[in-house]
Amino acid sequence: MQDIDVLTENRVTKIDPKEKRIEVVDLSKSETQWFPYDKLIIATGARSRRLNLPGSNAKNIFTLKDLQDGIRIREYVDENKPKQVAIIGGGFIGLEMCEAFKTRGIETFLFCRRDLPAGNLEREISERILKELQENSVHFLPNQEPIAFHVNSEGEVTSVETTKGEYPTDMVLMAIGVIPNVEIAREAGVELGKTGAMKTDFVQRTNLNDIYTAGDCCEVFNQVSQDWVYTPLGDIANKQGRVAGENAAGGRVSFPGVVGSAAFKVFELEVAFTGLGIQAARQYGWDIDSQIIEAESKVGYMPGSKRMLIKLTFDRRSGRLLGAQMAGEEGVARRINSLAVALHQKMTINEISKLDFAYAPPFSAPLDPILIAAEQATKKIRRSS
Amino acid sequence: MQDIDVLTENRVTKIDPKEKRIEVVDLSKSETQWFPYDKLIIATGARSRRLNLPGSNAKNIFTLKDLQDGIRIREYVDENKPKQVAIIGGGFIGLEMCEAFKTRGIETFLFCRRDLPAGNLEREISERILKELQENSVHFLPNQEPIAFHVNSEGEVTSVETTKGEYPTDMVLMAIGVIPNVEIAREAGVELGKTGAMKTDFVQRTNLNDIYTAGDCCEVFNQVSQDWVYTPLGDIANKQGRVAGENAAGGRVSFPGVVGSAAFKVFELEVAFTGLGIQAARQYGWDIDSQIIEAESKVGYMPGSKRMLIKLTFDRRSGRLLGAQMAGEEGVARRINSLAVALHQKMTINEISKLDFAYAPPFSAPLDPILIAAEQATKKIRRSS
Repeated sequence: MQDIDVLTENRVTKIDPKEKRIEVVDLSKSETQWFPYDKLIIATGARSRRLNLPGSNAKNIFTLKDLQDGIRIREYVDENKPKQVAIIGGGFIGLEMCEAFKTRGIETFLFCRRDLPAGNLEREISERILKELQENSVHFLPNQEPIAFHVNSEGEVTSVETTKGEYPTDMVLMAIGVIPNVEIAREAGVELGKTGAMKTDFVQRTNLNDIYTAGDCCEVFNQVSQDWVYTPLGDIANKQGRVAGENAAGGRVSFPGVVGSAAFKVFELEVAFTGLGIQAARQYGWDIDSQIIEAESKVGYMPGSKRMLIKLTFDRRSGRLLGAQMAGEEGVARRINSLAVALHQKMTINEISKLDFAYAPPFSAPLDPILIAAEQATKKIRRSS
Repeated sequence: MQDIDVLTENRVTKIDPKEKRIEVVDLSKSETQWFPYDKLIIATGARSRRLNLPGSNAKNIFTLKDLQDGIRIREYVDENKPKQVAIIGGGFIGLEMCEAFKTRGIETFLFCRRDLPAGNLEREISERILKELQENSVHFLPNQEPIAFHVNSEGEVTSVETTKGEYPTDMVLMAIGVIPNVEIAREAGVELGKTGAMKTDFVQRTNLNDIYTAGDCCEVFNQVSQDWVYTPLGDIANKQGRVAGENAAGGRVSFPGVVGSAAFKVFELEVAFTGLGIQAARQYGWDIDSQIIEAESKVGYMPGSKRMLIKLTFDRRSGRLLGAQMAGEEGVARRINSLAVALHQKMTINEISKLDFAYAPPFSAPLDPILIAAEQATKKIRRSS
């Protein structure tokens, strides 16, 4: 094990791939130095996207990407006791924060460009999420975008003006996604993909010699769409980082990519998905069909059994599974992973319907909801063939 | 849809495969009749195994296979208020009943032939189960078998005599497995397997023309061991029944078998397994290695996160997964299914370590315990190659 120097309070300002060195500013001393490297890993992550609107620099507009952001939000809430919050964006950061704000007793307004929250998911799943928001007294304001933040003399937003109206608020959370930090890399000649994130390969190299990348600043291969995509998620960053690190240190490991699995929780509702949604699958040229069912999370007579939705998307001819989405109050998030494995293995819904899952009444019905959904999907294929 | 006649209170006493008819006794009228059939499905199930020992017909010795058995046990407990119960057998029926009896305030003694409960599982998992029993004040009595039940003048067991001593008790639960009901089938010429259950194939036929079988009376194919085995579980019976029924009705569906997945709950402990244990894998000729880890069920800072054990068994040369066993208080049973899929697909631990599982702090760490276990197992292979 070699010694590792960790340089905190140091910012890399330039990469010189020809001389294999990086320019580093020591922030405590304001000194600039060049550091040589044998191998370089660019893991610059991403930053929250912000809207460039009148008033958008007000001090009570927050974003949420890292721990510091979270602490800042909590401190503002502690000190200022806001009565109302406006969340901009119906993705899963915005949705998860609804619970956090409501727990603090803050009236919560969720503004969304689309007609439903989590608009990338299937309508039935998004509708279930909307129901959960409504049951928890979150005000959902669809089909509108902010156009200005009105700010008082103390530099605080007092209302949000959207394409539909004006809404008073005591604070704002901007939760409209992230942007990869690629500026320094791009200047040095690192190639970016069509997503705007850094291009990489199955061993986490960039196009430049001895420069690797990992995490929210680079793309990842989606095994279902066979396309390089931008999916800035912590577990992917973690895996890419291990591979980049091992390879930069002379190892030979690979990261074959993802299938698009993720999960989040909105109040008591668990939402999980993997693979492609209907729209994405069509865009990639698949002729798809889908099957949605509602089933019990465990045997109906067991305490705590809850209804869950499962929607499977599959290739109409071969029956190959292309994606799955689930929502329910119990036993959802960990159930999706078996379908993630099925996607990695290009399994058909017929094969999935015959899987041997562990059955016990506290955990599932004799036929797991996934097996029921797959079996019903299989019947669709049989009818059409 | 054709009409279905359900004949309750009728017992089949003979099958005549030549004439394609069955002999049926109408129990309410004590009349015997021959019924013709075009196709016959034998789904006679299994019955609880009983020890043939002095006193073993006492009226307070129970078995537990079906709903009636459960009702009988509950009624006896309600009426007689036993203070102590002796459970014979450390399999999962015996283990699950420990919780039921303790909930009723009954002092519970679990007698086991082996040194640990659930003796078919890996030692580390069985030891974790033992700890759970002890924490819940169940008396575990290992390495002994009953040799007699001492009965009073009212025909009730008052003590169990084992190979190690004599133990007073107010009731006995015999939980030592089941025996397939094959007598009538065997008499008719249906072939039995080496397990004693009926032989069948991937479309649920028996060796006799137009006679199918399904459920706890027949064998099932294990895709990992490539062997026909006896695994009398409800979910398998359910799937076999659908296939037998559809094929008997002229359909063409198949049931490709199982990988050996099951789960049960002992007090707060979830136990789940799939595939082959170390011993079974060795018996089938594999050169195996294994990896056990302990990990958090979700991100450590989330409320309700619990430690879980995961043990993976794999082929030493190819790294192919052969089996997995897990135990923990949270998030175990539904996690095993992704490894069941991996077994169906003959995946290696290296492939498993790179799976894209849905990550969110309420449900798992960025690297799911399964991925950590697989990654550590992969290092073993790399070291040895």
